[in-house]
Amino acid sequence: MQMSHRIDGFQCSPIRRLSPYAREAAAKGIKVYHLNIGQPDIKTPEPALKAVQDYSAKTIAYGPSEGLPELREALSEYYKGYNCQVDPEDILITTGGSEAIQFSFMTVCDPYDEVIIPEPYYTNVASFANVAMVNLVPVTSRMDDGFVLPTIDDFESKITRKTGAILLCNPNNPTGHVYTREELLQLLKLVRKHDIFLIVDEVYREFCYDGKNFVSVLSFPEYADRVVCIDSFSKRFSMCGSRVGAIVTKNKEFLGGVLKLCQARLCPPDIEQHAALAALRADETTYIAEVKKEYQERRNVLVRGLHDIDGVKCNTPKGAFYLVAELPVDDAEQFAIFMLKDFNLDGETVMVAPCADFYVHKELGTRQVRLAYVINPNDLRHSLKCLAAGLKAYRRRMMHD
Amino acid sequence: MQMSHRIDGFQCSPIRRLSPYAREAAAKGIKVYHLNIGQPDIKTPEPALKAVQDYSAKTIAYGPSEGLPELREALSEYYKGYNCQVDPEDILITTGGSEAIQFSFMTVCDPYDEVIIPEPYYTNVASFANVAMVNLVPVTSRMDDGFVLPTIDDFESKITRKTGAILLCNPNNPTGHVYTREELLQLLKLVRKHDIFLIVDEVYREFCYDGKNFVSVLSFPEYADRVVCIDSFSKRFSMCGSRVGAIVTKNKEFLGGVLKLCQARLCPPDIEQHAALAALRADETTYIAEVKKEYQERRNVLVRGLHDIDGVKCNTPKGAFYLVAELPVDDAEQFAIFMLKDFNLDGETVMVAPCADFYVHKELGTRQVRLAYVINPNDLRHSLKCLAAGLKAYRRRMMHD
Repeated sequence: MQMSHRIDGFQCSPIRRLSPYAREAAAKGIKVYHLNIGQPDIKTPEPALKAVQDYSAKTIAYGPSEGLPELREALSEYYKGYNCQVDPEDILITTGGSEAIQFSFMTVCDPYDEVIIPEPYYTNVASFANVAMVNLVPVTSRMDDGFVLPTIDDFESKITRKTGAILLCNPNNPTGHVYTREELLQLLKLVRKHDIFLIVDEVYREFCYDGKNFVSVLSFPEYADRVVCIDSFSKRFSMCGSRVGAIVTKNKEFLGGVLKLCQARLCPPDIEQHAALAALRADETTYIAEVKKEYQERRNVLVRGLHDIDGVKCNTPKGAFYLVAELPVDDAEQFAIFMLKDFNLDGETVMVAPCADFYVHKELGTRQVRLAYVINPNDLRHSLKCLAAGLKAYRRRMMHD
Repeated sequence: MQMSHRIDGFQCSPIRRLSPYAREAAAKGIKVYHLNIGQPDIKTPEPALKAVQDYSAKTIAYGPSEGLPELREALSEYYKGYNCQVDPEDILITTGGSEAIQFSFMTVCDPYDEVIIPEPYYTNVASFANVAMVNLVPVTSRMDDGFVLPTIDDFESKITRKTGAILLCNPNNPTGHVYTREELLQLLKLVRKHDIFLIVDEVYREFCYDGKNFVSVLSFPEYADRVVCIDSFSKRFSMCGSRVGAIVTKNKEFLGGVLKLCQARLCPPDIEQHAALAALRADETTYIAEVKKEYQERRNVLVRGLHDIDGVKCNTPKGAFYLVAELPVDDAEQFAIFMLKDFNLDGETVMVAPCADFYVHKELGTRQVRLAYVINPNDLRHSLKCLAAGLKAYRRRMMHD
């Protein structure tokens, strides 16, 4: 019995596929620091947790496929704080940002159509593209340039009759780049010229550092009809397990298409929508400010620490909570496995996400890893020690092989 | 700007697409009885609700893509009660039964492959097939035969090199038919002969009436490698809004394929998994027995009432909580709209789901509706009065047009 060819062609997530090694390490009593995954140790806001405890429905019933009306209302209010005029009717609640990207692909692209995306990109996008049978067409951003937006000519040269959209992640996962108003405006002019969509994943919107200003793609009303924004509560309120996200667009045809997909899967999870609603309504400005300060400190610890390790290169990310680091190794995946399987420093080690699968041109990521600075500064310092010692041990081993 | 052709080809769910009419009716002060959707008014078990209130994590974090290990353990225990020996490792938790069907299609079928399915079928399956670019190949079951399984020759004549699986829903949504051991065995022999899968959606497993015995497809160990079971907590514990389901199979290759899709979407909702776990652990045998008794009474009320209406035909369903009724109208969809838009009986009316889209051969369902007996007997009696009066009014109007 054969499985489908397409499922054979699907990647196992580079963020999660090494987990069996991590479990084996843990089983041996080794403490594993997880820099591989964007799972913060930050607490969910109290009002969200309280909403869960106060959940009073006697029947956990289907909600509307569009999401809870109160949540769509509250999101519309929230966006005003980012200078975005969005009505509740412009918002569909999804089961996480993942579903939002998946549904967007299905809605703008037919099979074998194309989505242009700067690489490296959030690796799971490759799976969403695979499900939708969409080809990702990469435009390479480079560490040496600080992972800024590739030139508009680079993008334009990739546009064909098959192009449905350009997909951006801002602030960027995995590079941490925050796109400027000018960068966005150039892309908006381009998508208008070629009659395609600009889809921007803004789930890390809150986390911009060094006073860097965030500009939402929803804040350009004159381009509203070709803009789709992907959103999620996972990172903003450190509630990754809640699976509540959103698709936002003023384009009614687009929204009508997405709604068909929403109806097929019935509704997003109900209790978690109430949790997200409570956090939004409570106006967690102070919470966000504190979390942002915390991430900025963690970033500083990680970047400084990496610069102190011989042969390691990285930029200082301005947003989100990841960075891409280039390591002095032949193959970052082999190194990642080595760290879990064959290495520990005083009973501790580090799990990292190898970057090859964050690229269409996989060779560009062979020596790179994505690191998430979502654990506390003390744990980060331990992780850095492990990384430094692990690199030494790995290189020694390479020389002897 | 064009949306994709495929999204144009997607149906708007016949269960939900008439909701705008229902909202307009409600806005006019009309009470609408919802027989269109399987949303029970039954309470969720207390232990599940209590688990929500007691949810004590300070961070709602990502869980494993496979689902919570405790939940997989508890499901494995639960299946033993149905004479099914299933290990926790044979189970992947999904975001509802919907996702489980979707992932199964992606795993066994390449684009343009085929899944054979008795029609009428749960209409949303058509959308899942559409997403996966799988063609549903129908084998017609007929009201006059009590919607029993079509002959094995009917199935076998549809098998081609493109066939990936046969999909069954047992007890059946929408017909209420409960398949016998003999019917299942015939299908199992057939899928073995042709080296394909038998996927059985058993989310209504608990609800079999008149002492009818439920036989799970998981209880045939000698066919275990070609069997996939779709499960969900939505109906069993009246927690439809929780979006927790499962895929169960002994076939490791199949499970490995599904896991890739699970990793891409990260994890199922965390809080609701804890709710489901609590209900399972509490062994809600009494709860299930009471709910089953309640549904059986509701079924009796609905079937008797329908038989009393001139020109209406229906069978007595043996399981699940739906039935298909044939109405003395030209077009059940027009009638459904009429009931919401132009009719009320003392300020009340009924919403039904037209059945055309429950068939590939849509013409077979033109005069049929699916009715869910998920509301209490008193409300059902009111609904029946509305239906009787509505049919009279609609036929009068047809004659005058």
